[in-house]
Amino acid sequence: MSAEAQARVAVDALYSADTTSRSLGIDLVSVHPGRVAVAMTVRPDMLNGHGNCHGGILFSCADSAFAFACNSRGVAMVGAAASIEYMAPVALGERITALATETTRTERHGVYDVALTTAAGAVVALFRGRCSRHRGAQQSG
Amino acid sequence: MSAEAQARVAVDALYSADTTSRSLGIDLVSVHPGRVAVAMTVRPDMLNGHGNCHGGILFSCADSAFAFACNSRGVAMVGAAASIEYMAPVALGERITALATETTRTERHGVYDVALTTAAGAVVALFRGRCSRHRGAQQSG
Amino acid sequence: MSAEAQARVAVDALYSADTTSRSLGIDLVSVHPGRVAVAMTVRPDMLNGHGNCHGGILFSCADSAFAFACNSRGVAMVGAAASIEYMAPVALGERITALATETTRTERHGVYDVALTTAAGAVVALFRGRCSRHRGAQQSG
Amino acid sequence: MSAEAQARVAVDALYSADTTSRSLGIDLVSVHPGRVAVAMTVRPDMLNGHGNCHGGILFSCADSAFAFACNSRGVAMVGAAASIEYMAPVALGERITALATETTRTERHGVYDVALTTAAGAVVALFRGRCSRHRGAQQSG
Repeated sequence: MSAEAQARVAVDALYSADTTSRSLGIDLVSVHPGRVAVAMTVRPDMLNGHGNCHGGILFSCADSAFAFACNSRGVAMVGAAASIEYMAPVALGERITALATETTRTERHGVYDVALTTAAGAVVALFRGRCSRHRGAQQSG
Repeated sequence: MSAEAQARVAVDALYSADTTSRSLGIDLVSVHPGRVAVAMTVRPDMLNGHGNCHGGILFSCADSAFAFACNSRGVAMVGAAASIEYMAPVALGERITALATETTRTERHGVYDVALTTAAGAVVALFRGRCSRHRGAQQSG
Repeated sequence: MSAEAQARVAVDALYSADTTSRSLGIDLVSVHPGRVAVAMTVRPDMLNGHGNCHGGILFSCADSAFAFACNSRGVAMVGAAASIEYMAPVALGERITALATETTRTERHGVYDVALTTAAGAVVALFRGRCSRHRGAQQSG
Repeated sequence: MSAEAQARVAVDALYSADTTSRSLGIDLVSVHPGRVAVAMTVRPDMLNGHGNCHGGILFSCADSAFAFACNSRGVAMVGAAASIEYMAPVALGERITALATETTRTERHGVYDVALTTAAGAVVALFRGRCSRHRGAQQSG
């Protein structure tokens, strides 16, 4: 099986079990080894107290892209830590794309960066996730 | 109005507009100036591809506690950045409490730490959020 | 040997080999299991281009406190990741204390928080470090 | 003056006042608008207690590259926060290059990523810095 096909199989399996991604309306946009894009539209049940998209929803979208990307090589990885920088508020109805790319990867660890952008191309947040080999003892994104 | 009463008013107003906290079943547990606890039970629609609670859901719970705590002094603050460290996976059905405390605060910025714990008292994740005075140009948690 | 004595022995051994701490004039102030304070005075060779203490010097001071604290229990740990939030600039001549405390620790990982304060008690920066068991494959603080 | 020339002037001015970069032997390698590389050799006074390059020294090298890059457009910026992920230990004598690139920038904020690599091209650490417009109230890298 090619790396491209393996990525598709691994991500599809993960996505089908990922009830959070499905309940938030996170769609798979593209899947390649080490590089996955997802997209999501900000719904009325995704706001914070100031009326913008909740930071946790943006994080969740990025975190799903990260989880799919770091598991796309057929080796189970789990998120160990992550950070997010917010650049601009995101309004109700906006379509957000999260593109996760592999910044570095060793046998046991990886760092993935995710850019969250609007349909107009504005960067609204940047996410960085660190993953480790799955040993049943850590959290996955 | 006392600082305690002011905190309650500010957080109640924020919580009532925060559709994400309500759709995720995040409950307010305690509200004090600079110190807010919320709690949430992991539902079947909150899992990741490995069958544990999705990292974004844990982050959302912490982020809501952070947003409530940093706005509890009557000055509108928005999240500028946040990070999370995952210590252990969280299973379906677990009740998670997120306690946000004020680590430091100046007139324009603040840093808040949130500990996520199970009902048994195990720390499953640690969150740190940085906020800035609201100017309509940044994201709120 | 008591936990207190063990911490002292472990940290003294680490400190004596830590040429960076000694070249930066970082002094050990107090050592307890999971809790270590160091201090340093900002010298003329520790400034940045704006004339304040360089961020990397503040980070180094915090990182040493972190490394000592996470190794104070007699199990070798190495830094896996760290973050720092700057709250205020630090001037030439200031005496900075870095107090590292153990926020959470499992057998294989730990998270330590370090507060950097001036002699007047102002918090100038907050550091958070994550460590893992030493396996010869990661960086130590 | 071209953007390239302006970057060179701005970075040279900052570098000449940056006593930390000079005392650590951090050299300017290349300067472009939003993109600066520096390099440093790990000296005997730059080790940690485990005998590898101290995390604070690696951070300092990255932080200088970040500070130069975020000030290369002629607008004074100061570091607000930063994080580092360590991928591999760095030995005495290694030549480390830190390449800072602009990931996103608005009028008031920016996020810069710095990759730290050995002469052989191995990524030993990844740094991310967030900067804000200089107002005399925050720390610069």
